[in-house]
Amino acid sequence: MAQDLEAGPRVTTAAFADRLAEAVERKRSQLVVGLDPSLELLPLEVRGESILGRAETARAYARFCCGIVDAVAPYVVAVKPQVAFFETLGGDGLTALERVCDHARNVGLLVIADAKRGDIGSTARAYATAFLEPREDGTPLADALTVSTYLGHDSIEPFLQACRLHGAGIFCLVRTSNAGAGDVQELTLSDGRRVWQHVASLVDDWGADLVGERGLSSVGAVVGATVPRAVGEARRLLPRSILLLPGVGAQGATPADVARAFTSGPASALVTASRSVIYAYRGGQSDWRAAAGSEAARLRSEVWSVSGW
Amino acid sequence: MAQDLEAGPRVTTAAFADRLAEAVERKRSQLVVGLDPSLELLPLEVRGESILGRAETARAYARFCCGIVDAVAPYVVAVKPQVAFFETLGGDGLTALERVCDHARNVGLLVIADAKRGDIGSTARAYATAFLEPREDGTPLADALTVSTYLGHDSIEPFLQACRLHGAGIFCLVRTSNAGAGDVQELTLSDGRRVWQHVASLVDDWGADLVGERGLSSVGAVVGATVPRAVGEARRLLPRSILLLPGVGAQGATPADVARAFTSGPASALVTASRSVIYAYRGGQSDWRAAAGSEAARLRSEVWSVSGW
Repeated sequence: MAQDLEAGPRVTTAAFADRLAEAVERKRSQLVVGLDPSLELLPLEVRGESILGRAETARAYARFCCGIVDAVAPYVVAVKPQVAFFETLGGDGLTALERVCDHARNVGLLVIADAKRGDIGSTARAYATAFLEPREDGTPLADALTVSTYLGHDSIEPFLQACRLHGAGIFCLVRTSNAGAGDVQELTLSDGRRVWQHVASLVDDWGADLVGERGLSSVGAVVGATVPRAVGEARRLLPRSILLLPGVGAQGATPADVARAFTSGPASALVTASRSVIYAYRGGQSDWRAAAGSEAARLRSEVWSVSGW
Repeated sequence: MAQDLEAGPRVTTAAFADRLAEAVERKRSQLVVGLDPSLELLPLEVRGESILGRAETARAYARFCCGIVDAVAPYVVAVKPQVAFFETLGGDGLTALERVCDHARNVGLLVIADAKRGDIGSTARAYATAFLEPREDGTPLADALTVSTYLGHDSIEPFLQACRLHGAGIFCLVRTSNAGAGDVQELTLSDGRRVWQHVASLVDDWGADLVGERGLSSVGAVVGATVPRAVGEARRLLPRSILLLPGVGAQGATPADVARAFTSGPASALVTASRSVIYAYRGGQSDWRAAAGSEAARLRSEVWSVSGW
């Protein structure tokens, strides 16, 4: 249990930011592939007996995601399973998620669980335990987690603790890629800044004591690639944070839109693409694994090229 | 799957707000008990063989929560399982959560899943499916869900859809009960309002077309009981919303602090208490079920009394 592991302040693995930077430089890749399994989009051969129910669907999700992991592994530094899709299948879905995360880690990839969790007090601690602290077998479910910021510093503190003690990372929601982001994040404050700009400065503070040997903090930020102006501004406000940039591909942004994000180092930003990679096979007749691998390879080269490293 | 169920716009059950209002008036209770299972706080007799691992711990959580459900059922209108604690146990934990939710619904209680989910596009849809749409057996996991608001209207829309089609409810995070709430929620906007007050007005809009026969909307709001000033102001900004008020008990607020929340009707606010009820046995020598039942009975009377109905 978490309590025992926190008895002494020992870091069991290197800082997340350093592990990521090492992987980026070794693989010359800043690409993260999102795993968003959806039954009606899976190749027929993978669906199997999914019509029989949830347990079979969960097994199909695991088969598909593990196949994608193998196909994209040479071209990406991390995978980003989207927890929601697994949750639709209850306990069976979570078991499938664990299998996929374990497989990705076994083939040498980092795992960023996209769950956007956020709560207070003992509940926030429980989320940190669920995603970032060692389980019975000594490994955490994920290396990093996306987290909500609306509840403020005490909702983040348990995750920071996991970063300090277990070499975990977090990506805080700052400016998202969707149309509704304007409703709250783009409101103008009395000092003239936008809400998301203020949140960015909070994130910079939270990550100040988690800067690793490569100069990057294990406290990163989610900034939508669909708003290039915001990407540049976020880079300025968060000089040491790794920016996780969703929105390239299916949501319409291009790697060129995010070039400015990489000015703090080759590993200072990560481009995530999900449906455009994992369902690439739907655009043609090729094998689903081969199609995902090709698209990941193409995108990895394009991103590396615009990053200027 | 959800897609089939949405082919025609049929509501399979009454609106959440009406179901809740009926329960409040019938039971003369505005109390919701939070289910926050934590191994080290469970009665020894319930822990069983939990030392053997996660699966056994999950069974202990289910035993404990189902026992609490039975003990408090006469005094509460709903239970609020805190999903984080179940997630610490992976697939076994989610299976336990399903068992607890099903049991609560079987004994006639409403279930408010406290998960604070929020994401965009197909991911938001998946969360709505996971928590609020009918599963294979035709019932949803929960009647209502707490949701994040930072991502704006399109992150909420799939949940509103579940309210319209399946009689579900949501509680949107507006002003939370923790110290860090000031970091973002209390920022002053250029028009002089606080961020949370703006969010409250958004929530009022989102719920406008989901007002039921009793005059209350199925789109509610989470407002911390620890800030009595905010409770009164939220009531004014959200005249038709059911306010979910955490913070009474272990977090220090009293029922008197939230009396103003009930001015829109007996069911227009719900007081939630978690640890002070479910772990009431730790304050004395009594049976854990009896202690939880007594504390729930006491709190229900106190809340009903201050509500003025």
